[in-house]
Amino acid sequence: MPESNAPAPPSLATGLLAGQRRALARAITLIESTRADHRQEAEALLAEVLPQTGRSVRLGISGVPGVGKSSFIETFGAALIAQGHKVAVLAIDPSSRRTGGSILGDKTRMEGLARDPRAFIRPSPTGGSLGGVARRTRESMLACEAAGFDVVIVETVGVGQSETAVADMVDLFLLLLLPSGGDELQGIKKGVVEIADLVVVNKADGDMAEAAARAAAEYQSALRMLRPVTQAWQVPVLRCSALTGTGVPEVWEAIGRYCDAIGEDGLAERRAAQAKAWLWSEIDDTLLARFRNHPAVAEALPAAERAVMAGEITPGLAAERLLQAFGIAPEES
Amino acid sequence: MPESNAPAPPSLATGLLAGQRRALARAITLIESTRADHRQEAEALLAEVLPQTGRSVRLGISGVPGVGKSSFIETFGAALIAQGHKVAVLAIDPSSRRTGGSILGDKTRMEGLARDPRAFIRPSPTGGSLGGVARRTRESMLACEAAGFDVVIVETVGVGQSETAVADMVDLFLLLLLPSGGDELQGIKKGVVEIADLVVVNKADGDMAEAAARAAAEYQSALRMLRPVTQAWQVPVLRCSALTGTGVPEVWEAIGRYCDAIGEDGLAERRAAQAKAWLWSEIDDTLLARFRNHPAVAEALPAAERAVMAGEITPGLAAERLLQAFGIAPEES
Ligand SMILES: Nc1nc2c(ncn2[C@@H]2O[C@H](COP(=O)(O)OP(=O)(O)O)[C@@H](O)[C@H]2O)c(=O)[nH]1
Ligand SMILES: Nc1nc2c(ncn2[C@@H]2O[C@H](COP(=O)(O)OP(=O)(O)O)[C@@H](O)[C@H]2O)c(=O)[nH]1
Ligand SMILES: [Mg+2]
Ligand SMILES: [Mg+2]
Repeated sequence: MPESNAPAPPSLATGLLAGQRRALARAITLIESTRADHRQEAEALLAEVLPQTGRSVRLGISGVPGVGKSSFIETFGAALIAQGHKVAVLAIDPSSRRTGGSILGDKTRMEGLARDPRAFIRPSPTGGSLGGVARRTRESMLACEAAGFDVVIVETVGVGQSETAVADMVDLFLLLLLPSGGDELQGIKKGVVEIADLVVVNKADGDMAEAAARAAAEYQSALRMLRPVTQAWQVPVLRCSALTGTGVPEVWEAIGRYCDAIGEDGLAERRAAQAKAWLWSEIDDTLLARFRNHPAVAEALPAAERAVMAGEITPGLAAERLLQAFGIAPEES
Repeated sequence: MPESNAPAPPSLATGLLAGQRRALARAITLIESTRADHRQEAEALLAEVLPQTGRSVRLGISGVPGVGKSSFIETFGAALIAQGHKVAVLAIDPSSRRTGGSILGDKTRMEGLARDPRAFIRPSPTGGSLGGVARRTRESMLACEAAGFDVVIVETVGVGQSETAVADMVDLFLLLLLPSGGDELQGIKKGVVEIADLVVVNKADGDMAEAAARAAAEYQSALRMLRPVTQAWQVPVLRCSALTGTGVPEVWEAIGRYCDAIGEDGLAERRAAQAKAWLWSEIDDTLLARFRNHPAVAEALPAAERAVMAGEITPGLAAERLLQAFGIAPEES
């Protein structure tokens, strides 16, 4: 690690707090960098602006490819901007590589937002584990808030456990569904419907309007059946058309009702729990990475995993041996 | 750690493989012990009998208190024994203390099984984290298999993440539901319905028969709506009465159909993935325990968690400082 040449350029924090888009873009580039000196600068920057964060509505949006996430965000974002909001859009897609991931390719579907000074769109950080991508997105969210964006949307295309990662960093997780229901759900992973705070059937227009109404009613009764009722909030199923805009303002209204329902204390509680979970996932990720990269562990691991999967050795014994290779002796548990 | 006085008493492995109940009880006591020398003996024992394990149907059963888990296992177990099976029942309840947990108290509802030499009932290991309880239950499951039990039932009352822990160690996860549906589901946690391989509405008798039929139909359509369709298996919703026995044989038949549907390869794949996940959760649990118990970490942790939860410091920076206290310097990620 280089000598502590740490503190962020003062201009960057100032620019960020002044809401300069270039400062925000540079801050996120710093946050996304894997260079140790950049990480230190990023941390110093975040520490400095932290008191000016937390004042946005943090929304997660997910749904299968083609459901209309980009189109929805374009229409929804335009409506919010018209009401005076500033909207930032970030993406989580651990599969995205140098191409810049899905959002960049989707910028054509978010042309209005992409051009608007009151909006800020940033593709997923490229590469890395979900844990790494999630951390950088969380930190970028703070940077957006420091720059005065009061609605931050985190979009995910649903790779690996990314929906859970997104739900764990936002105030409200919105799931977009197709009007056709049932079979179309094949792309949605187990448990995702159950973490949604709000379900919206998109493409409720033209030929599909009727199917969308039916699907929404069916989803609503299915959710009533399968979702535990929390005191504060019963997950509603809405319909909208990202294409025509019908129903889109109602989504924002429902988000308002949700915020009222859980209240300031509920929100503070959710965010405190998320921050604590984030702390532990950072710790956990680092410990596991160190373990995996330890030379003796790295050498023994493939054979150990194979033997465990073939049932030739108990996982307990294999774990103990690998931990010994890492330098950790067994102790009374 | 004491000198290696490790190898298990030869009589124990022999007795276990001969199917002696006393040997099984002693083996599980060894598995549950936290003494380092006992752990070593247990590991040696499991290593020895491992080739004789894996030949049972591993069932997980969950449901809210009062749904009829104990009654169902009594009736279901009796039917299996009558067909020539040997049935072991283990429990996961990380909240259980020296009392021996719920199953012991429930032995009155499993009187028949408790007395039958072809059945073996063991309460949850007392105390410890879910990770610890789960590991001991998994190892006890292997011991039951070595002793010739060909149906092993792991019951959980659903504390913390215990349903997921159980689903991750069995071939089929069965969720028992009450006939009344909807509101009654308050006790069932998010995501639990979605990990079930089989759903059974219990108490489908007398006054409740009609409600049970309605509930089963509603659950079935809700599951069709919300559950992704896997090629091999569409989760069925059955009805039964643990009291009268009606519908109980059909549950066993459905389990047979499930095993046929996923096939030997599917089962081997599921078990291999579970063994690998078990390996990693053991490693993870141990690394985190070492971290937490490190004197410098233990001292700094409470204040760090508080500051993170209050939003005074980013989780990333707090994690880095704690990891430094643990002796891990930051590196390029
Ligand atoms: N009819 C209709 N088509 C839509 C709607 N929203 C999106 N689409 C279309 O669905 C396709 C996928 O949309 P896109 O926003 O790229 O989906 P994403 O993959 O979830 O980001 C495009 O052809 C859109 O024009 C809608 O509300 N109604
Ligand atoms: N009517 C009826 N009552 C049942 C049935 N199964 C269990 N019960 C009753 O429900 C209560 C709870 O049963 P128990 O097996 O202890 O549930 P557990 O807490 O899930 O283990 C007891 O009073 C049982 O007699 C059933 O199939 N029909
Ligand atoms: Mg898109
Ligand atoms: Mg019971």
